[in-house]
Amino acid sequence: MNKEFDIIENYFSFSKATREVPITVGDDCAIFTPPFGHTHIATSADLLIEGQHFFSDVNPKNLGHKALAVNLSDLAAMGAEPIGCLLSLALPSIDQSWIAQFTEGFRNLSEKYMCPLIGGDLSKSKMGIIINVTVFGGLNVNFRRSATSAFMTRAGARAGDDIWVSGNLGKAHLAYTTKRDNPNDLAKYAMIFEALELPEPRIDLGKSLIRRATSCIDISDGLVQDLGHIMKSSKKTAEIHLEKIPYDKNLEKQFSKEQIREAILSGGDCYELCFTAPPENRAIIERLSDSLQLKLTRIGEVSWRFNIDRERRERVKRRQELRNKFEKNNYYVDTTPFTPIPHAQGKPRPPVEVYENGELIEVPNGGFQHF
Amino acid sequence: MNKEFDIIENYFSFSKATREVPITVGDDCAIFTPPFGHTHIATSADLLIEGQHFFSDVNPKNLGHKALAVNLSDLAAMGAEPIGCLLSLALPSIDQSWIAQFTEGFRNLSEKYMCPLIGGDLSKSKMGIIINVTVFGGLNVNFRRSATSAFMTRAGARAGDDIWVSGNLGKAHLAYTTKRDNPNDLAKYAMIFEALELPEPRIDLGKSLIRRATSCIDISDGLVQDLGHIMKSSKKTAEIHLEKIPYDKNLEKQFSKEQIREAILSGGDCYELCFTAPPENRAIIERLSDSLQLKLTRIGEVSWRFNIDRERRERVKRRQELRNKFEKNNYYVDTTPFTPIPHAQGKPRPPVEVYENGELIEVPNGGFQHF
Repeated sequence: MNKEFDIIENYFSFSKATREVPITVGDDCAIFTPPFGHTHIATSADLLIEGQHFFSDVNPKNLGHKALAVNLSDLAAMGAEPIGCLLSLALPSIDQSWIAQFTEGFRNLSEKYMCPLIGGDLSKSKMGIIINVTVFGGLNVNFRRSATSAFMTRAGARAGDDIWVSGNLGKAHLAYTTKRDNPNDLAKYAMIFEALELPEPRIDLGKSLIRRATSCIDISDGLVQDLGHIMKSSKKTAEIHLEKIPYDKNLEKQFSKEQIREAILSGGDCYELCFTAPPENRAIIERLSDSLQLKLTRIGEVSWRFNIDRERRERVKRRQELRNKFEKNNYYVDTTPFTPIPHAQGKPRPPVEVYENGELIEVPNGGFQHF
Repeated sequence: MNKEFDIIENYFSFSKATREVPITVGDDCAIFTPPFGHTHIATSADLLIEGQHFFSDVNPKNLGHKALAVNLSDLAAMGAEPIGCLLSLALPSIDQSWIAQFTEGFRNLSEKYMCPLIGGDLSKSKMGIIINVTVFGGLNVNFRRSATSAFMTRAGARAGDDIWVSGNLGKAHLAYTTKRDNPNDLAKYAMIFEALELPEPRIDLGKSLIRRATSCIDISDGLVQDLGHIMKSSKKTAEIHLEKIPYDKNLEKQFSKEQIREAILSGGDCYELCFTAPPENRAIIERLSDSLQLKLTRIGEVSWRFNIDRERRERVKRRQELRNKFEKNNYYVDTTPFTPIPHAQGKPRPPVEVYENGELIEVPNGGFQHF
């Protein structure tokens, strides 16, 4: 028993009490207060189980990083500023070297994004490593118009919005399938393991998107699946273009076109952000991409869930184009739609439609669940 | 995959969005705001693993109750008002009847203490049931004097304080050992299983103790162990009296004196509160016991960690007695110390000393970890 408290003292008590977190590890509860000016708390929890969400032989330092990163990614998708986190950890045995490495990875990321570890639970597990991380972030909605548009949720996408993704997609999925299918091809895995084991939460991008994006999600189950969540919540249909989806071109040397296509459309564990924003914000988002040094790519646009009268549709589009041509801050805004809309009137559409060179293609609707 | 979302929709989405929780189950994060007047958030997480923290054949409804109850108990120990909770659940298979029962128990307790389920994570587990619950509670420290005394932590106990416990102790431990040692003696277990499977979080007591108690903890690892945490944090020694520790006298028919003694001193999974309060607050605490219909028993007092000069000690005691004899609100306050202090000067003392009829007795220092 007392060993448990020593372990907590040595490895899990790295965050000191501050004005914002007056009570940290070591009491019944941790106590925090929203940072100055923040009115709401965003919170999320993710459970990671050995063999289910990570390989048993994963580097403990990378596992510590990933356990926190996947949760920070949820905060990023809401545009929240990290406040702190709780870590529940169950281990088959007390292996101090393992714990030291795990907490090093966890701590490095926690310090990078100023998300102190403020509490949790340590216990024994007869069945492998179990990790649950809960994160808290602050949000300020004082200066936003109404309750419905106050938060960057999944339900805010509007017809005519652009669809954007950050970074490159698909690499984590290819790393996963490489390791699963050829566990001994270490060289191939070593080249791409970082995407799977060390994802980077897009906290700064998320914060910058507030009041600029209409909806946002982090890609954890695959682009089509996660964009589908936005579309279902927003009651819209997304039209995305396969040739626009960004991926690392170096992958083409090692993987077939089909593998890459599956990875970028349905591969999970990616943790880039996918968001929708009105075309008037294109310039501002492109400037954001420069200032954050992060690639942001427009891959499609939001359309109506049900096909409406073609004439009315054209009218809405024309009105939108006129509005968008108003050159704000001398930035020229290109609003040419990607493709003409080929649908018959009245036919219900799936949440996400994927086009290859303007032709609608079939994709499996479900995302890819790793492990 | 889609089945997962149906299950979440059917069984885990029972809490509707409110002003205080505008975004609930179904987005990347849940969003809540502290209730009006509350300045701080208390939070805690507990992991429950099959075979480790509960028997595999436990009634799912009771398990749902307990998973939330042990977390609410942590909020109670801080005197916080529940705001909401997150549930991470990993299951070996999707057994809808099991899920329905589990969520029924969880939901009933969540509605009783107005602690809505606002988010979480559902996944597959190859290794039995895994549950992690995170709770949030609101605290108002606007009107309290200083940062150090603002919260009811483990570090606030002062020499001369009374030590109190709520309810009866030991029953959960006896239920656990009965089930473990005689798994087929169902009749005996049926009489006492409620203490183990359906603990009641002392939320109302916790909230009432703010500004009245100097420190508080919930008894999860055993009275001596948990009171020891308060004493270590407060740098004091507790003197408690075996014959004062409250337990259900009906247990004497089925269990030996030794079994009961072990259960009340070191038995875990109890979830009553143990707290310290200055003797001036005795009357107010007794009235609290009446109004909450909950037994509160004074079992000892807080003393110095290191023996100090006997004369100085007597002087401090006398001064304390004089102060306490000041009859506040016409309530008579009894401040006779339980026992004379038998220690030699300068000898360091353990965090908790247990006396039986005035004689110091030996107790194992560690708490009892069930499972």
